[in-house]
Amino acid sequence: MSKVNLAAAFASFEEAWAPRLAARIDDFAVKVVKLRGEFVWHHHDDNDELFLVVDGQLWLRFKDRDDVLLETGELYVVPRGVEHMPDAPEECHVVLLERADLVNTGSAGGERTAELTPLDG
Amino acid sequence: MSKVNLAAAFASFEEAWAPRLAARIDDFAVKVVKLRGEFVWHHHDDNDELFLVVDGQLWLRFKDRDDVLLETGELYVVPRGVEHMPDAPEECHVVLLERADLVNTGSAGGERTAELTPLDG
Repeated sequence: MSKVNLAAAFASFEEAWAPRLAARIDDFAVKVVKLRGEFVWHHHDDNDELFLVVDGQLWLRFKDRDDVLLETGELYVVPRGVEHMPDAPEECHVVLLERADLVNTGSAGGERTAELTPLDG
Repeated sequence: MSKVNLAAAFASFEEAWAPRLAARIDDFAVKVVKLRGEFVWHHHDDNDELFLVVDGQLWLRFKDRDDVLLETGELYVVPRGVEHMPDAPEECHVVLLERADLVNTGSAGGERTAELTPLDG
């Protein structure tokens, strides 16, 4: 692989809620995704999910704990089984660290389920 | 867990080459580490290792490919089995994403092997 420049990666696509594969590490992946607005409530039965905000602000909404506001340079791990809804009032650039095969909508499924596509695809 | 602010994390310790555990995701970890100078040549037999530079410049030196210079906001995955040596001419702040139990010196071992310690420890 070549190195990945995160700013260039985010500049290479516009679509929101469509994660791009930036790198694989064993069976894990670094995915880059642009978020705009509210997602769907869901959880992942068997896997944790890390959100790192690289530009903007992201609310992680929860039902079993206080919501978390992530600003640029902040990260949070949503534990397996925890119902959550990402909510980005303005466009937010996020790096996800999670199993490569984790599906974005998790338990919810539905029309907002997105294929993971290559960064340059 | 609470959210982690990367700038605050790096401000919380000074020691170089001593990774701190910032977050766990399944059996993976986000580790934050300050690098100054050259490390030891080593490889990891069975695991990939991701370097993300959050402040500074990092050379990844290789024997089987061209060296890679990572600047702020750039990442690279060193594949399993690939001999490498991190080299930071000036202090560099790095996020590592790798299996939680990966040992920093890998195949080399020796005096620069560091325990992974909690971020606030």
